[in-house]
Amino acid sequence: MSKPNILLIYTGGTIGMIKDFKTGALKNFNFDELLKHIPELHLLDCHIKTKSFDNPIDSSNMKPEYWVRLAEMIEDNYSKFDGFVVLHGSDTMSYTASALSFMLENLSKPVIFTGSQLPIGDLRTDAKENLITSIQIAAVQEKGKPKIQEVCLYFEYKLYRANRTTKINAEHFEAFASLNYPPLAESGVHLVFNDHALLKLKSNKELKVHKKMETQILLIKMFPGLNEDTLTHLLSWKELKGVILESFGSGNVTNESWLTNALSKIILKGIPVVNVTQCSGGSVAMGLYETSTHLKKIGVISGKDITTEAALGKMMLLLGESVKPSEFKNLFEKSLCGEKD
Amino acid sequence: MSKPNILLIYTGGTIGMIKDFKTGALKNFNFDELLKHIPELHLLDCHIKTKSFDNPIDSSNMKPEYWVRLAEMIEDNYSKFDGFVVLHGSDTMSYTASALSFMLENLSKPVIFTGSQLPIGDLRTDAKENLITSIQIAAVQEKGKPKIQEVCLYFEYKLYRANRTTKINAEHFEAFASLNYPPLAESGVHLVFNDHALLKLKSNKELKVHKKMETQILLIKMFPGLNEDTLTHLLSWKELKGVILESFGSGNVTNESWLTNALSKIILKGIPVVNVTQCSGGSVAMGLYETSTHLKKIGVISGKDITTEAALGKMMLLLGESVKPSEFKNLFEKSLCGEKD
Amino acid sequence: MSKPNILLIYTGGTIGMIKDFKTGALKNFNFDELLKHIPELHLLDCHIKTKSFDNPIDSSNMKPEYWVRLAEMIEDNYSKFDGFVVLHGSDTMSYTASALSFMLENLSKPVIFTGSQLPIGDLRTDAKENLITSIQIAAVQEKGKPKIQEVCLYFEYKLYRANRTTKINAEHFEAFASLNYPPLAESGVHLVFNDHALLKLKSNKELKVHKKMETQILLIKMFPGLNEDTLTHLLSWKELKGVILESFGSGNVTNESWLTNALSKIILKGIPVVNVTQCSGGSVAMGLYETSTHLKKIGVISGKDITTEAALGKMMLLLGESVKPSEFKNLFEKSLCGEKD
Amino acid sequence: MSKPNILLIYTGGTIGMIKDFKTGALKNFNFDELLKHIPELHLLDCHIKTKSFDNPIDSSNMKPEYWVRLAEMIEDNYSKFDGFVVLHGSDTMSYTASALSFMLENLSKPVIFTGSQLPIGDLRTDAKENLITSIQIAAVQEKGKPKIQEVCLYFEYKLYRANRTTKINAEHFEAFASLNYPPLAESGVHLVFNDHALLKLKSNKELKVHKKMETQILLIKMFPGLNEDTLTHLLSWKELKGVILESFGSGNVTNESWLTNALSKIILKGIPVVNVTQCSGGSVAMGLYETSTHLKKIGVISGKDITTEAALGKMMLLLGESVKPSEFKNLFEKSLCGEKD
Repeated sequence: MSKPNILLIYTGGTIGMIKDFKTGALKNFNFDELLKHIPELHLLDCHIKTKSFDNPIDSSNMKPEYWVRLAEMIEDNYSKFDGFVVLHGSDTMSYTASALSFMLENLSKPVIFTGSQLPIGDLRTDAKENLITSIQIAAVQEKGKPKIQEVCLYFEYKLYRANRTTKINAEHFEAFASLNYPPLAESGVHLVFNDHALLKLKSNKELKVHKKMETQILLIKMFPGLNEDTLTHLLSWKELKGVILESFGSGNVTNESWLTNALSKIILKGIPVVNVTQCSGGSVAMGLYETSTHLKKIGVISGKDITTEAALGKMMLLLGESVKPSEFKNLFEKSLCGEKD
Repeated sequence: MSKPNILLIYTGGTIGMIKDFKTGALKNFNFDELLKHIPELHLLDCHIKTKSFDNPIDSSNMKPEYWVRLAEMIEDNYSKFDGFVVLHGSDTMSYTASALSFMLENLSKPVIFTGSQLPIGDLRTDAKENLITSIQIAAVQEKGKPKIQEVCLYFEYKLYRANRTTKINAEHFEAFASLNYPPLAESGVHLVFNDHALLKLKSNKELKVHKKMETQILLIKMFPGLNEDTLTHLLSWKELKGVILESFGSGNVTNESWLTNALSKIILKGIPVVNVTQCSGGSVAMGLYETSTHLKKIGVISGKDITTEAALGKMMLLLGESVKPSEFKNLFEKSLCGEKD
Repeated sequence: MSKPNILLIYTGGTIGMIKDFKTGALKNFNFDELLKHIPELHLLDCHIKTKSFDNPIDSSNMKPEYWVRLAEMIEDNYSKFDGFVVLHGSDTMSYTASALSFMLENLSKPVIFTGSQLPIGDLRTDAKENLITSIQIAAVQEKGKPKIQEVCLYFEYKLYRANRTTKINAEHFEAFASLNYPPLAESGVHLVFNDHALLKLKSNKELKVHKKMETQILLIKMFPGLNEDTLTHLLSWKELKGVILESFGSGNVTNESWLTNALSKIILKGIPVVNVTQCSGGSVAMGLYETSTHLKKIGVISGKDITTEAALGKMMLLLGESVKPSEFKNLFEKSLCGEKD
Repeated sequence: MSKPNILLIYTGGTIGMIKDFKTGALKNFNFDELLKHIPELHLLDCHIKTKSFDNPIDSSNMKPEYWVRLAEMIEDNYSKFDGFVVLHGSDTMSYTASALSFMLENLSKPVIFTGSQLPIGDLRTDAKENLITSIQIAAVQEKGKPKIQEVCLYFEYKLYRANRTTKINAEHFEAFASLNYPPLAESGVHLVFNDHALLKLKSNKELKVHKKMETQILLIKMFPGLNEDTLTHLLSWKELKGVILESFGSGNVTNESWLTNALSKIILKGIPVVNVTQCSGGSVAMGLYETSTHLKKIGVISGKDITTEAALGKMMLLLGESVKPSEFKNLFEKSLCGEKD
C-alpha cells in the first residue's frame, strides 16, 4: 500500500502573505517559504508536492482566466496525484471553487479549496489548522479510492461542498457558510464524515475540463428604488449575454409591468434570466406568491436554492459552451454536480 | 397613570395574507379581519388603534414613495401615540425600516417593524407571536417615557436595531440577522432588554421627517468576471447620482487600473461611491490590503460595517437633500442613528 | 382514505396552567378548557380525541409510576389511534420521554411529547405552535403508514428523537437540545423531514409494554472534591441496585485507588455501574486516556454517547426486568431504540 | 515602558500530552518540551516565565488540595508578574477556575485558564491557538494596568469569566459555554473586548488567598425515580456539611412531603442546601411555581443563575471559612466576583 500523492497549489491569498513594514499592507511572498512555517506537514501520512501560480493572485483580482489556469494545472497533473489542495484567498474563494466544480466534469478525485483569515506567519492564525486538515482530508482513501470525489471548501473545522458556500463574514474565523446543504465533514477531537451527504460518482467517464467562460453577464441585485430608468439602462448593454437576478426572499420582485416587460423582451432575444435569492439561505419558489408568478410566465429560470456564486459560474460555463436557450433552461434547472436541490 | 396608546400600521405583507384557493397564490385581505384572528390583542395593557395602507403593498413592490407615505402616517399621528408598530412583508422589511430610521430625524418614540414568514391565518404561524410581542415592546415605558426611542425590527424572539438587519433566510422562522450589532432585546420566559445597546436620545429636538429620496443610483455587487466592458456600461448611465459598491471581504476589489480609473472619473464628477462588504457580517477596512488602498486614494467612501440596506437608504436621503459631495462624505462616514460603528 | 386519528394525552405541565391571582403561582386547570384556547385545532386534517390524567402531574412531581400509567394509556388505545401526542411539563420531559422509548417495545406509531415554556393562556406563548405542529407531525402518513414510528419530542420548531434530548435552558423558548443526534424534522415555511435519520422499524412484532422500573439506583455526578469518604457513604446503601456515574469529558474520573476499589467491589456484587459524560454533547470513550482505562478493567459499562436521562430509563427498565449482570452489559452497550451510537 | 511579565503555569492536561505508543493512551511529558513545540511564543510582546506542577495532574485527578497549590503559586509570584496563564486539562477546568475565582480575593491581575481538546504535539490541534491568544490577553495593559482583573477561561476564540463556564462538549473544539453571561472577548481577525462585561475592581485591597476548602458536601442531581429511600440514605451521612441540589428547570423539585421534610431537617441542623438548575442555561427562580415555593419556605438557598461548578467552589470556601448559617445564606445569595446575577 503506497501513500497517497497530494498536489498543493498556491494561487495567492492571505494564507501566504507577510506584512510590508513600511505601509502596513500585506504582500504575497515566495511560496516555498510557506512550508518552512509548517514543519508539521512533513509528518502527514502522504506525499506532498507543491506548485504555485507564477504570480500569486490576490483574491479580489481573481477572474475566469485564472480559473482556467487552475483547471489546467489540475488537468495536467490529474493522473499523477490522488488529491488536490488549492490555497486561495478567502474573499472570492466561493466564486472560484464553485466555478471549478462545473469546469471539472466527471471529477473523481478530491479538490479541496482552503485559505485563512489571518496570514500563516501571524501569531494568532487559522492558517495552519485549515491547511493541515485540508491535506488530511484530500488523502483519505476508502477501498483504494479517494473518499471525496468532488470540489470542496474547508474552513474552520468544516468541509463543505464548494458550490454551496458563501463567504458570510469578513472578520470571524468562521467565515463561510453552506446554508442550504449540510457540511460534508467536521473536524473535532475526531474527523467525522457525513457519508450520506457526499457526492456519488455517476459514471466512470474521463475528466473533461471546460475552459470557455462567457463573462458578458449582469448580476442585478434588486432593491426598492431600482426603477424603470435603472433597469432600462442596465439592459441596454449591447454585449449582454445573460442575467442573474438577485431577487427578494423566495424569488420575488415587483410585479409592475415595466419590469416584466423589460425582462420579457431580453428573454425573447435568447438572453437567459436566472432568478436567485439574495438571502444567504433558502430557495426561490416561483409561483407561490403573486409577486413571482409573472416571472415564471415570461420564462425566467428558477435557480431554486443555488447560491449566487454557483449561479454565476454555471451561467458563464453554459454560455461559454454556446448552449441553446431551451437547453440552457433545462441544464440550469437540474443539478449538474450537487449545486442545487 | 394612563395606558400607552399604540398605533398599528398595516402596509401589506404575508402577515395579512390569505390563500386564493383557485391559484394557490396568496392575496392580501382586509386589515380589519386581522384583529379577529388575534383576540388576545384585547388583553394587552395598552390602547391599540389601527390604520392601513389604502392598497396594501406586497413586500416586493415596496419603493421609496411608499416609505414617504409611511413616514407621513407616523408624522401625522406622532403626538397622539406613544409607540408605533408597522406590519410589513419580510422580503424588503430591512430596506424600508433602515430607510425610515434616517427619514425620522430626532425620533423619540418606538417604531417597531414586524411581519411573518407564514400568514396569520395559517395553522403553523409565526405571525401572532411577532405581532403580540412587538406591541408589548412598543408599549414599554420607563420613567414616563418610552423605553425604545428608535426604529427597530422584531422577528422570532429578537428585537434588533432596524438599520443593522438583513433578511438572511427565505425559509426559516429566524429570517433576520444583525451580525454587526447585538439584539436590543430577547423574548423568552422573560422579555429581557439589553439596556446598554439601546440608542440614547441626543437632543430634545422635534421630529423632522425627510421625504426626498433620490433613486437614480446603482448597486454594483462585485464578482470575478465583472470586467472593464461591464463597468463601462454600468457607469455610462446619464442619470447616475450615486453608487453603492458591494465589495469582497473587508472592502476589496481588483486593483486593475480599468476599475480605479472608471470609479475615479465619476467621483471627480461629484458622484459618490460608497464601499460596503457583500458579506453579511464584518466591516470594510480600506487600506489594510493592497487591494483596497487604491480605492481610498481616489476618494471612495468607506461604509465600514453598515449593511447594504442601510447604505442605500442613507444615500437616497443624503442625495435627496442635495448635500454637497464633501459633506456627503463626512455625513456618510459618521453614524447618524446607530447604523454603523 | 380516512383521516388519521390522533390521541392527545394531557399529563400536566405549564402548557395547561393558569395563574393563581392570590399567590402569583401557576396552577393546573381543567384540560377541556385547553381546547377552547386553540380553536385552530378544529382545522387540522385529522380526528383528535383527548384524554387527561385524573390529577395532572406537575413536571417536577413526575416519577416512574406515572410513566407506567402513561404507557398503559397508550397501550389501551394503541389499536384505535394512528398517533399519540403527549402534553408534559418541560422540566422532566426528556426523562419521561426517554423512559417511554424503552417501555414501548416494537412501537410502530408516533408518540410525540411536547409542552411549553409559557402557559397556553399567556399572551406571549410558545404553547400553541408546539401543540399544533406536534399534532400535524403525528398525523403524517406515508404509504398508508405513520411516517414516524418512534417516541419523539417536539419543541420550538424541531422534532427530536426523545431519548437523545436534554433540557438545556430554563428560560429560552429553545429549551431542548439533541447534541449527539440530528433533528428528525424542522418546521419553517415548510415542514421538512430528515428522512435518513428516522428510526426504521426492525420487525412487525406486536407492541410490548414494559412496566417494571427499578428505582433503587444512584446517579453520581462527579466533581473535584468528591472523595473516598463521600463515595464510601454513597455506596453503603443496602438497597443499591445500580449506579449511573456522570464522569468528566470523554468518560474520565480520578484513577486514585479508592475509587477503583470501591466501584470494583459493587460490580463484583452484580451491581452495574454505567459511565456517562456530564457534558451535554460528546461520548464516553473508555480506554483512550489513562484516567479511564482503570474503569474499563473493572467492568464499568460504557454508556458511549447516551444521555443521562436515557441511561436512567434504560437502567431502571433492565433492572426491573431482572436481567442478569452479563446480559445487562450486553444490552446496555447496544442501541435498543436509537438511544446511542 | 517595559514589556509585561507573564507567568505560565502548567498543571497538567491534554495540552501537554504525548502518545504512549505501546498502549495508545496519552501521557504527560516534561513541560520544558512544550515550548519547543511553539517557537512563536518567542515573538510575543511580553516576557514569559514558566513553572510547572512537580507532578502534572490529569484533569480528572484534580482536587481542592491542588487548587490550593495553584493558588499558592500565584500568591508567591503575584508581585513579580503582570498576568498569569494556567494550563489545565479541559475536563475539570471550569471547576478549578471557578474555585480559584473565589479563593483569590481582591485579585487585580489576569489569571487566564486554558487548555485544549487535542495535544499540542498533534497535527490537527487547538492547543497552539488557545495558548498564544491566552498569553496575548494576559499581557494587555490599559493606562499602565492590566485590562483584565479577574479569573477567566479562554477556549476556541472566546474569553469567558471563569466562574460562568461549563464544559458542554467532550468532542468539539468549542468545548465550553457561558450561557448566562456574555463572552469577555472574542478573537477573530481582530481581538475584540466586550468592555462593559469586564469585572470592575471594587477596592485596592491586597490579594487575600483563601485556602481552606470543605469537601464533605453532596451534589444531588435530581431525577424522576429519586425517592424517599434514596434521599434518606444520601442525607444520613454523618460528615455532611452542605448540599448542592441540582433541580429541574427554574429550580423545581417534587413537592411531596418526604423531600421537604428531609431537607428541612438538615437545614435546621445548620447544613446549608443550595438550589441550582441542572440546565446549562437559565436561572433558579424559587417561588414562581408551586413546585418550588415549599423549598423557599424551609430555607433552601437560591443559587439563581450560578453554575454547579461555581456553586461547589463557593460552598467549599464558605464552609471552609466556617461562616455561620445565616451569613452563609447572605454571602451565597449575593455575587462575590461576578459569579451570578
